[in-house]
Amino acid sequence: MKEYLENLRKNNPLIHNITNYVTVNDCANILLAAGASPVMADDANEVEEIVKISDGLNINIGTLNKNTEKAMLKAGKEANRLNKPVELDPVGVGASSMRKDFINKLLNEVKFTVIKGNLSEIKVMAKGIGSSHGVDASKEDVVTKDNIESIIDYAQEFSKKTGAIIVITGATDIVANSDYAVAIKNGVSTMAKITGTGCMLSALITGYISVNQDNIFDSVVTAVSMMGLAGEFAEEKRIETNSGNSTFRNYLIDAISKMDEEDLEKGANYEVHSK
Amino acid sequence: MKEYLENLRKNNPLIHNITNYVTVNDCANILLAAGASPVMADDANEVEEIVKISDGLNINIGTLNKNTEKAMLKAGKEANRLNKPVELDPVGVGASSMRKDFINKLLNEVKFTVIKGNLSEIKVMAKGIGSSHGVDASKEDVVTKDNIESIIDYAQEFSKKTGAIIVITGATDIVANSDYAVAIKNGVSTMAKITGTGCMLSALITGYISVNQDNIFDSVVTAVSMMGLAGEFAEEKRIETNSGNSTFRNYLIDAISKMDEEDLEKGANYEVHSK
Amino acid sequence: MKEYLENLRKNNPLIHNITNYVTVNDCANILLAAGASPVMADDANEVEEIVKISDGLNINIGTLNKNTEKAMLKAGKEANRLNKPVELDPVGVGASSMRKDFINKLLNEVKFTVIKGNLSEIKVMAKGIGSSHGVDASKEDVVTKDNIESIIDYAQEFSKKTGAIIVITGATDIVANSDYAVAIKNGVSTMAKITGTGCMLSALITGYISVNQDNIFDSVVTAVSMMGLAGEFAEEKRIETNSGNSTFRNYLIDAISKMDEEDLEKGANYEVHSK
Repeated sequence: MKEYLENLRKNNPLIHNITNYVTVNDCANILLAAGASPVMADDANEVEEIVKISDGLNINIGTLNKNTEKAMLKAGKEANRLNKPVELDPVGVGASSMRKDFINKLLNEVKFTVIKGNLSEIKVMAKGIGSSHGVDASKEDVVTKDNIESIIDYAQEFSKKTGAIIVITGATDIVANSDYAVAIKNGVSTMAKITGTGCMLSALITGYISVNQDNIFDSVVTAVSMMGLAGEFAEEKRIETNSGNSTFRNYLIDAISKMDEEDLEKGANYEVHSK
Repeated sequence: MKEYLENLRKNNPLIHNITNYVTVNDCANILLAAGASPVMADDANEVEEIVKISDGLNINIGTLNKNTEKAMLKAGKEANRLNKPVELDPVGVGASSMRKDFINKLLNEVKFTVIKGNLSEIKVMAKGIGSSHGVDASKEDVVTKDNIESIIDYAQEFSKKTGAIIVITGATDIVANSDYAVAIKNGVSTMAKITGTGCMLSALITGYISVNQDNIFDSVVTAVSMMGLAGEFAEEKRIETNSGNSTFRNYLIDAISKMDEEDLEKGANYEVHSK
Repeated sequence: MKEYLENLRKNNPLIHNITNYVTVNDCANILLAAGASPVMADDANEVEEIVKISDGLNINIGTLNKNTEKAMLKAGKEANRLNKPVELDPVGVGASSMRKDFINKLLNEVKFTVIKGNLSEIKVMAKGIGSSHGVDASKEDVVTKDNIESIIDYAQEFSKKTGAIIVITGATDIVANSDYAVAIKNGVSTMAKITGTGCMLSALITGYISVNQDNIFDSVVTAVSMMGLAGEFAEEKRIETNSGNSTFRNYLIDAISKMDEEDLEKGANYEVHSK
């Protein structure tokens, strides 16, 4: 894993984010903490030029609107044309038909390198159906020991359809393509008590895949592990200092900025599910 | 008061916020810290669906524009139709005729459960006149011992006109409906030295009223007390650690996430003004 | 320098920011920390009224779009008409023709009191050419001992053309008008590892120039020194507490809120380049 992080820090890629205004500051800061540079630009009149100078594109529909829809489509197509990696975070896709329709359009017109969502979001995308508690996963949509194999099957099916690596986040995170699947156990529950951990993960993944194009799958696993591990470090410090949620957020980004290759290699906790 | 907080934490309501992009991250995080879930969505094409899956709606005009105006009107009407509580934060309403006109329109077309503002904002709304120092209260618009009774009268008048519970924030906060008025003494002056305490309070109030519909008035008093008390806890820790404003903001949200029912019951500092 | 900070704290100016949604919260908080009040408003229908009640205008094109373009032009012209100071932060101007074209238009139609950018941005503006790594300065665009004199010449040329005080940020910051130039050595490299230090500096400068109109040049030097010095204080505390980037951001704003006139006078590290 360490080489993927080294590549990120050494190459300082420029990551173009078309993302929501709720967690955009956290996304910018986690990219900087990890060694990348963020650029946020969402006017359809400039996104193609921004894609051109960027090393990867992160599309997040958290606060989608008619203007950003146009920008996302244009940017996604241009990234495809220039063969640059594109990540999709379908935040709250089940919450409105506007989001569902747009994601359908996007999946038809843009090829994604990685699609990352919680189980509810991935279900909506894969099946066109599913429940949704706003932007969080529904309570029934939780990965457990009993359903993990069927969820992996599910992710692999969706990967076959889209050609994208599928990341399903939860207490256990799953990374799958049509051939492989990895379950990642890093992370703590406090991560769900602040806004933005999902969005930050998407930004971080985009950073990783932009500089590890020969080993995209493994670099996605590394990004997911790193995020969870940063959460573990942050939680330890939060408890130690008797702090709350907001300080946890700072410790999380701090942990990304301070994490060295050895920490990551030692702390990553995942298992390969051979299929 | 403790039962209102318990209800919030137990029921994990989904709160729809159409709010400004300055403090939106803080609003999301305070809702999560208090036990609710935030969803931010402001495109007129989807807000009605988002209202449908939400338990309460928070409308904040801090960075109003022609697009969000439409979304706010649609969402507010739909929330009324579905009988879901709606909160209004008329940020800086006195600063432009665009804001004043829109708030007039909004008051005509949407029924609010709670309206929260500083004294300048409430005056503008109630009288159609008043001074305004941007988004802060004017220096002359301060609640003192001498004018508190007349301000309560004022709030109760406005409550009668609108049917909403009126919250006037300041060194002393006032919560009033046509029958009751409560003055809340919790809070510290440092809260006015960071952006977003008012917006966060509105988000928090919306969380409370969404799960305490049998005791809305008391739950609003609880929300206002909790916010002020969190400020007191944060200020104590800020001084202890010799920190400044930004760390205070973190301590404030931390305090919300850590506050238990006993802290709240014990620390709430308010008096009922019988009328 | 201390009198400029005193003026800021004493007069509590209202600063109108039309800025990006990435770092807008940090901009609001640094203004509050320094003693000013922020107002963010970016709808073309209200910006002229907001300018009217404000003491200074800060225009930042970080997430420019067709709507904010209109607002910036209108607000800038109104500020000129009312003789209120206007600051320009041409974030990532080299990244797209949309940004370049708009900045050209803006320079033609609005007179700026201060223009602040990194060397890449200033070059693009001055020459209509130049490289750009997204919103950061290109690696070759760094102020060194060897090129500082030619960069000062450059800044003074551009100042002559625009009538604005030019601030070029980097490891060494330069403040120049057609007659004077000052090089400021305050600051630490961690400032470039969080988002928003440049945007915060622009907000801070606007605060300073709004209340020090008899000594605008010196007050800009003071703002730049204060920002860098706050970075030094923050870095010291970050190392002491073994923290990372996100905590550094908080310490930075903390340092602004806690800095007194003596700290500033003592810590400011600059030299005048007589020309």
